[in-house]
Amino acid sequence: MKFATLKDGTLDGELVVVSRDLTRAIAVPSIATSLLDALQRWDEVHDALLDVSTALDSGRAPGALAFDPRACAAPLPRSPQWLDGSAFLNHGRLMEQAFNAPPIPEFDSVPVMYQGASDDFLGPHDDVPLPSEADGVDFEGEFGVVCGPVPMGVTPSAALRCVRLLVQVNDWSLRALGPHEMKTGFGFLQAKPSTAFAPVAITPDELGGAWRDGRVHLRLHVQWNGERFGEPHGGEMNFDFGRLVAHAARTRKLSAGTIVGSGTVSNVSRAAGSACIAERRVIEKIDQGEIRTGFMRFGDRVRMEACFDEGQPGPFGVIDQRVVAAAT
Amino acid sequence: MKFATLKDGTLDGELVVVSRDLTRAIAVPSIATSLLDALQRWDEVHDALLDVSTALDSGRAPGALAFDPRACAAPLPRSPQWLDGSAFLNHGRLMEQAFNAPPIPEFDSVPVMYQGASDDFLGPHDDVPLPSEADGVDFEGEFGVVCGPVPMGVTPSAALRCVRLLVQVNDWSLRALGPHEMKTGFGFLQAKPSTAFAPVAITPDELGGAWRDGRVHLRLHVQWNGERFGEPHGGEMNFDFGRLVAHAARTRKLSAGTIVGSGTVSNVSRAAGSACIAERRVIEKIDQGEIRTGFMRFGDRVRMEACFDEGQPGPFGVIDQRVVAAAT
Repeated sequence: MKFATLKDGTLDGELVVVSRDLTRAIAVPSIATSLLDALQRWDEVHDALLDVSTALDSGRAPGALAFDPRACAAPLPRSPQWLDGSAFLNHGRLMEQAFNAPPIPEFDSVPVMYQGASDDFLGPHDDVPLPSEADGVDFEGEFGVVCGPVPMGVTPSAALRCVRLLVQVNDWSLRALGPHEMKTGFGFLQAKPSTAFAPVAITPDELGGAWRDGRVHLRLHVQWNGERFGEPHGGEMNFDFGRLVAHAARTRKLSAGTIVGSGTVSNVSRAAGSACIAERRVIEKIDQGEIRTGFMRFGDRVRMEACFDEGQPGPFGVIDQRVVAAAT
Repeated sequence: MKFATLKDGTLDGELVVVSRDLTRAIAVPSIATSLLDALQRWDEVHDALLDVSTALDSGRAPGALAFDPRACAAPLPRSPQWLDGSAFLNHGRLMEQAFNAPPIPEFDSVPVMYQGASDDFLGPHDDVPLPSEADGVDFEGEFGVVCGPVPMGVTPSAALRCVRLLVQVNDWSLRALGPHEMKTGFGFLQAKPSTAFAPVAITPDELGGAWRDGRVHLRLHVQWNGERFGEPHGGEMNFDFGRLVAHAARTRKLSAGTIVGSGTVSNVSRAAGSACIAERRVIEKIDQGEIRTGFMRFGDRVRMEACFDEGQPGPFGVIDQRVVAAAT
């Protein structure tokens, strides 16, 4: 099943079931008022949603309309928790060098994770209002999972069974603010403005064999101002999503709708390019002796799409956002 | 005005207006379904709530019932964001020694703040289920503010005008997990299980002159298993709440209902005692050469009450919680 959320002026938006090819959608107010509502009553609504999804894909869904990603909020415009790991160790090691930070203890064996704001997510085509270019505006292409209720102390394998949906994420970052916040030990706060999501959240079965071992085995194609930036592969994630969800739930339960992110998708091979600017910059420093790339300017755009095959529409749809100066 | 939330099986609970002396309460479903709902429509509901509050305090509120703090959830059982500062520098400096951590850069001039889970707050008399005594179970007595909508980039003085309610907080901490999470730079996650709140959230005017300069000028009386632990004074907060809220909103807006905490209340004078165990332990180490106090055991209780005068009931009511082993 595929789901999206249309902006309707409410905090949770209007749930629609989306066709597999992302061309059509149908509202389901009689089943669930919002995707959060559906996640909170998943076992109760699952079969009814599946019936609608099946009918939609076979062209037998009266009331279906053209699917317009530009009308979409994030699949969950707000969620109970947003917990983002750093599960691609290649990215983490490069960022240590980028931030000139000491090595994170036990980085290879214990996931790291920060808690981000989850009350105000951005939709896939929303402008990104930020106070200053001097803050070092950067995108971060990621994958994430949306959980059902997760009990405290869950094992990684049981945690994986709590995964309801997969999402594609752009975790906006302000790189000039990150190193100080890391040094405080209290974690990222000002360095992490509102996070954005691709329009469509999907059940894991929609990926077929590309969802295995708790990882999304797709390349994430990233373009900055229309130019290719990278297409790192999600399968290289060092900690799988079961491990990440279990880490998050070690001393707390997670409410239905909690989103856990992978951190920036990153591959050891330089040929894959990058899914964030900070990583390219440190690679330039390492490989070429100097940083050549600046961070984003107001008016810049970033486009992200995870694909089965390059050039073919991806299962989550497209993130395509422009950075703008916040109104003062 | 004073508000509390009765447990009714819903995620946001049932809003009640509470009398100034905390003896009576009245549900107000025709005005707002929950405290979160009221905060989201504050200007629209304010006068109606004030009318009920005034009638209740003058004994002219038909339908008022005895107020039972044991039936209460946290005033906001879930909130859009929970952001906790460390605004009592005396506490922060002691914790650096307790954790054997390097000094936080710019600690005297820039607030530090972590983002905590806000989907599952504990009520004032709720048991606290935790996985292991070995995690170093500790309480942290704090004050907090509940905000209306806060725009990105707000000034400290404008931020203070966004404060709608004051709350009293017990920010549960697992001290064995904190130092590692600080060293990762990603901040506290496993070290911070669900946070608890005193039953009553109050408008700032309820404190009279004890709310001034963006600070709560009350002593927070803390008892551990019935024995006095400390009564540090909230007026010693180094960064006021306006500064903390502005820090939180530097690169993001805050949704109505966001809670910003002071961090552990702490005074330079040793005579005040402490509002968390970790602080007492490091003081023992400094003053007496060795740590004598252990962390909490399952079955232990903590009681916290901010008071105008010792022995008189405080404006927020009482937090009185027991730590228990989580069901496995």
